[in-house]
Amino acid sequence: MATETQVHVGLEGIVAAATRLSSVDGQAGELIIAGFPLERLAPFATFEETIFLLWNDHLPSQNELAELRQSLASQRQLPALTLEVAQQLGREQADPMDALRAATATLTPLADEKATAQRIVAALPTIVAAYWRARNQAEFIEPRSDLSHAANYLWMLTGNEPRAEQVRALETYLNTVVDHGLNASTFTTRVIISTESDLVSAVTGAIGALKGPLHGGAPGPALDMVFEIGTADRAEEVLRAKLARGERLMGFGHRVYKVRDPRAEVLAGAADQLFANDGNRELYELVRHVEQTAIRLLEEHKPGRKLQTNVEFYTALLLHGIDFETDLFTPTFTISRAVGWIAHAFEQRAVGRIIRPQSVYTGERNRTWVDVAER
Amino acid sequence: MATETQVHVGLEGIVAAATRLSSVDGQAGELIIAGFPLERLAPFATFEETIFLLWNDHLPSQNELAELRQSLASQRQLPALTLEVAQQLGREQADPMDALRAATATLTPLADEKATAQRIVAALPTIVAAYWRARNQAEFIEPRSDLSHAANYLWMLTGNEPRAEQVRALETYLNTVVDHGLNASTFTTRVIISTESDLVSAVTGAIGALKGPLHGGAPGPALDMVFEIGTADRAEEVLRAKLARGERLMGFGHRVYKVRDPRAEVLAGAADQLFANDGNRELYELVRHVEQTAIRLLEEHKPGRKLQTNVEFYTALLLHGIDFETDLFTPTFTISRAVGWIAHAFEQRAVGRIIRPQSVYTGERNRTWVDVAER
Repeated sequence: MATETQVHVGLEGIVAAATRLSSVDGQAGELIIAGFPLERLAPFATFEETIFLLWNDHLPSQNELAELRQSLASQRQLPALTLEVAQQLGREQADPMDALRAATATLTPLADEKATAQRIVAALPTIVAAYWRARNQAEFIEPRSDLSHAANYLWMLTGNEPRAEQVRALETYLNTVVDHGLNASTFTTRVIISTESDLVSAVTGAIGALKGPLHGGAPGPALDMVFEIGTADRAEEVLRAKLARGERLMGFGHRVYKVRDPRAEVLAGAADQLFANDGNRELYELVRHVEQTAIRLLEEHKPGRKLQTNVEFYTALLLHGIDFETDLFTPTFTISRAVGWIAHAFEQRAVGRIIRPQSVYTGERNRTWVDVAER
Repeated sequence: MATETQVHVGLEGIVAAATRLSSVDGQAGELIIAGFPLERLAPFATFEETIFLLWNDHLPSQNELAELRQSLASQRQLPALTLEVAQQLGREQADPMDALRAATATLTPLADEKATAQRIVAALPTIVAAYWRARNQAEFIEPRSDLSHAANYLWMLTGNEPRAEQVRALETYLNTVVDHGLNASTFTTRVIISTESDLVSAVTGAIGALKGPLHGGAPGPALDMVFEIGTADRAEEVLRAKLARGERLMGFGHRVYKVRDPRAEVLAGAADQLFANDGNRELYELVRHVEQTAIRLLEEHKPGRKLQTNVEFYTALLLHGIDFETDLFTPTFTISRAVGWIAHAFEQRAVGRIIRPQSVYTGERNRTWVDVAER
């Protein structure tokens, strides 16, 4: 009977896939990406190396890397329809994730799935940049094939040759968020692929899931809080007032991690480097102070809850440090995570079984038809 | 350890939702749609009545029905970008589900979710028709607001005022396939909505899942088999030869139903009515003969497997009977099922919990970074 069946709302604790792509240990604060503890991979790899690693389970040789770089670089131009959708939604000031979903959905899956994978990954930065430039009444900037994936993205957004520190900061970010267990968008990818559908359909669906505030998150507000505080001496006062009003401190706490999110650690290191000799050094110091104060006050206010800095907090700082506006945060997250989605799609394809849970029926059973004239 | 954890590949037997929308009992061959045994609803309701029923859990009053009809009818025009995507992909002879995904993805979610729901449902037939006409080098036909949802769809496809029997046949089909438990596309909808994303994102993702051959199915081949047989006297010979070669008989067998799929029953009745006084009566008789022969031979060939006629078999016959080409079958399925997806989205929204299962990690754990120069 319906009332006796256990409904796994949220599927918590249900293991739905075996994966070699990432391992999340929330108690230990450990994240493994394709065999590498995050901190041993993210600060060193170019994003192309991470792509290759996730899709092939080993780091590329020099030749393999050159080949992947060249292949991705040659596919950065968008089909006319895709470009038109991205730009039109930019001109209409549409939500960035709506625009990314719509433009990605126009890509055509190719017969070869590896080729489709590259096609999508190569296209995403161009889609975001085309949308972004149109939204800001700026001319579209053609992609350059001589730049890396990350550097070309910065180039298309601004038309400026990015500095090496900016590229490194962006690559560390992209490497850090590329995969994270069976989150809702990754799971969406797997459900769609399990019907033997295609990668474009799967990635489009996953973008729709990542758009949700419970998932893609909102790294913007974490930084807004820092700006609201303004100077280190005001941190304790402002944060205490927020907690007293029952407000959530943005950028702290995570469903899984009960210690400091390992991604926050890596991104903090990247920010430290990025801001080393930069006018933003002051902001970096302020952020560190706000973080320490927030953790101290949270432990005081909610003892035992172990609310720690999450990935959003340092995402905001790092992306702000390379001059990204808040509305670029989730699209940039997508550019990275799509690589993880596709890797999961390859794994799910190999499983070859449709994902189809059950539902339990709680409605009526014996309604009888009444013609509308008698209603 | 990874090897000791039970991985629920496919999530079979895991109950992931409670729903009042539909109940599938494969042993009894029973399908309940929002309180109605299918056969008490599908042959009688207009599709607008079914939409209202699924979204409100009761049949509409005369006023409620008039209001819904009027509201849907007034939203049949597409935004310029949506129309352009549908037509362009038609001109390019893109896959129909690729086109439907891409055009749907361009719709903009509204602040009011019920309004978004109507917007999507009203737009889908126009998207399919715009694609279809462009694909066939025919002019776009403007939607008419004086026709019902089903009648207007037929109008936009052909430019001919449909006959009442055709409309009735299509409505019975749309009612029959509107919902069916937690299938993969419906589950996709729920996963996406569970992140607090929007209906356009959820329906776009679900279209991508329905595109998969393991899900949206291929009703075309069932009819191809009937045409290959051609005349009743050849049925046994052709079917025996297929079985001897180890071929699957298209249109028979279902993962859930072990008796005749109740949807096949309702669609057979609708086909019987549609073909009552029609030149296609002969085809209908042939189909019945092929069905009976196939079931007899399947029981002989695979005793105890209980392979019965599935929904695809009579879908093919019925849609062929209203002059639909095979490539319109899955898009027409989508026009109906989207109503069920949206009803599930409303339910999932009320649950308010993110769907996030777990994965078990099977990869390496201690890889060390090697610079590319040394690889």
